[in-house]
Amino acid sequence: MKIFQQLHQDTTSKARLGLLTLGHGQVETPVFMPVGTNGTVKGMFHEDVKKIGYSLILGNTYHLYLRPGLEVLSQFGGLHSFSNWDGNLLTDSGGFQVFSLSGLRKIGEKGVTFQSHIDGSKHVFTPESVVDTQKIIGSDIAMCLDVCTPPEINHRAATEAMHITHSWAKRALTHRKELGESFKGNLFGIVQGNFYEDLRKQSAEFFNEMDFPGIAIGGLSVGETSEQFVHYLQYTADLVTREKPRYVMGIGSPDYILEAVENGIDMFDCVLATRMARNGAVFTDDGVVTLKKAMHKFDQRPIEERCNCRACTQYSRAYMHHMVKTGEMLGGMLATEHNLTYFYRLMQQVRQAIRENRFASFKRDYLARFYAK
Amino acid sequence: MKIFQQLHQDTTSKARLGLLTLGHGQVETPVFMPVGTNGTVKGMFHEDVKKIGYSLILGNTYHLYLRPGLEVLSQFGGLHSFSNWDGNLLTDSGGFQVFSLSGLRKIGEKGVTFQSHIDGSKHVFTPESVVDTQKIIGSDIAMCLDVCTPPEINHRAATEAMHITHSWAKRALTHRKELGESFKGNLFGIVQGNFYEDLRKQSAEFFNEMDFPGIAIGGLSVGETSEQFVHYLQYTADLVTREKPRYVMGIGSPDYILEAVENGIDMFDCVLATRMARNGAVFTDDGVVTLKKAMHKFDQRPIEERCNCRACTQYSRAYMHHMVKTGEMLGGMLATEHNLTYFYRLMQQVRQAIRENRFASFKRDYLARFYAK
Ligand SMILES: [Zn+2]
Ligand SMILES: [Zn+2]
Repeated sequence: MKIFQQLHQDTTSKARLGLLTLGHGQVETPVFMPVGTNGTVKGMFHEDVKKIGYSLILGNTYHLYLRPGLEVLSQFGGLHSFSNWDGNLLTDSGGFQVFSLSGLRKIGEKGVTFQSHIDGSKHVFTPESVVDTQKIIGSDIAMCLDVCTPPEINHRAATEAMHITHSWAKRALTHRKELGESFKGNLFGIVQGNFYEDLRKQSAEFFNEMDFPGIAIGGLSVGETSEQFVHYLQYTADLVTREKPRYVMGIGSPDYILEAVENGIDMFDCVLATRMARNGAVFTDDGVVTLKKAMHKFDQRPIEERCNCRACTQYSRAYMHHMVKTGEMLGGMLATEHNLTYFYRLMQQVRQAIRENRFASFKRDYLARFYAK
Repeated sequence: MKIFQQLHQDTTSKARLGLLTLGHGQVETPVFMPVGTNGTVKGMFHEDVKKIGYSLILGNTYHLYLRPGLEVLSQFGGLHSFSNWDGNLLTDSGGFQVFSLSGLRKIGEKGVTFQSHIDGSKHVFTPESVVDTQKIIGSDIAMCLDVCTPPEINHRAATEAMHITHSWAKRALTHRKELGESFKGNLFGIVQGNFYEDLRKQSAEFFNEMDFPGIAIGGLSVGETSEQFVHYLQYTADLVTREKPRYVMGIGSPDYILEAVENGIDMFDCVLATRMARNGAVFTDDGVVTLKKAMHKFDQRPIEERCNCRACTQYSRAYMHHMVKTGEMLGGMLATEHNLTYFYRLMQQVRQAIRENRFASFKRDYLARFYAK
């Protein structure tokens, strides 16, 4: 069950070009995935997400489990048909969300008990139930339940969390195998180990030996310094097998994305592009533009000259400024479309640079311009 | 300068079919106009508003005057190009908004002084300045500044308000004539007179004699009972010349619209359809459906079977319910598109019924079904 094919290895870095073959079509990597937490990429029609070029988006298991809930998703044959998305769908395990509910959750032998942030009701996620949930969602890529830990915990706690993650991964894989062909999704393991090299190494080796079709590097971009991020990304990436697609969760700023690509990471997702858009912050090659600023009041230019999105082809920065100032929905809608178009284009440029063996210089030039101001 | 042509008179009521010829194309009447207060119909792309069939939308002079402001609108050559809307645009005079700012405004001889609801800054609207403002906006139909009064004022106060409205209308028309061809917009007068028959009669006769290309019946749907609304609508409509297009402002529920059509009114606007949509309330031939209700959690049906909008062709009520419950923007976007599609279709049916001399029975049957529950 090999879902990943490496097409080309950049000669100037560890960056690589690849192809993912999933239940709803093929996806070129490195790929950025927009986040559709509740089964909608906020402020976008799915058809427009597709039109930009995206064929793989993310949903959040924790949120979908609570709303609309598994009964609804079952009756509608999964999230694809419920939300009218015919591209590929990756879901996280819900672990990250559950472990963010500090105080509201408790790890036991079976799994993790938590209270809903919506109504306080009690729920249990187990390694097995989380696979079942993602089966009901109909995920093309599903993730193992893992234990997410903050950057400041000690070695003992990090070791314990890692061991639970490993034991849960085994159970999840066993359960996934039991489901057989009744579930088409590809279950990925998640390397943990916090910010300790020995644990990262142990975890990477553990997952390299396991029979997962893809591996995520977890526990990054969780509040650590950017030096820590870069160090542990490189350190872990070098230990994870390159036979499989490699995914880093929750990164979405251009510098982190390019850092990940440079280290041979194939997949990333983040709410940054869409969340910033709703606050009127839009991406350009010359950095982030804050549309709310008074300097844009009379600005006849589009957000970005060469951009072919609806915002840039139909509207000025002055109109976008007006939409943001008046709090109009259209502001968020247009800015989201622009940012997702921008990130899609960035990934196209990234893939082109790898294809032409010039990723290292592309990264340097891009970041120099983006962060020049 | 005749902009209105009556095409057919229904034989079962005073309803009529007509054609408005405006600066940005022709418009069949009776017509419902969506409201785009700040230069955007909330939650919609202008191209989708157009795709539904709308070729005449409304903007609010008071809001546009404050934001983006006349300087911006001047530099962009008006709201059409600023907001990328190439259909027709009607703007109100701002009077209604200013007179809703109770305590913050003061009527003088020159005009009305008011404070911005945004930053408290002081401004003056005069009959002349309001025409100039609508010229800068580039309105295809502009409205005279009038004095709007609530239903409970006494005869003396109502008379005084009416006289100021008349005097301002004269000044506005004089000013509009001075502008000549430099302003392409059609300036409409607004009949006032509160809820007093003698004043309504006096005001209608005043405007019948004036050289406006269209007449609005103002001061309705301002908090009066529905009996008062029906009575004063009929009473006033019977007094206003049928040579010109007749517009009732701020009505948007199906019963009020059909009541107005039955009395030969040609134009109406209201925020109801779009505001209700954003609260998850959608229109169907069987009445308003509240998507938030638990009964829709598993509902596989679309909002309305025969509707061809994006919401109804792509999504179930269950998905719409989920969008509303999770507060997702897509809920408001889809519901707005449905409601505007619904009102466009309603007006198509209305025009067809008039064409076939069966408006009276159409109205009766439609309302019986709509309010059956
Ligand atoms: Zn753009
Ligand atoms: Zn519909």
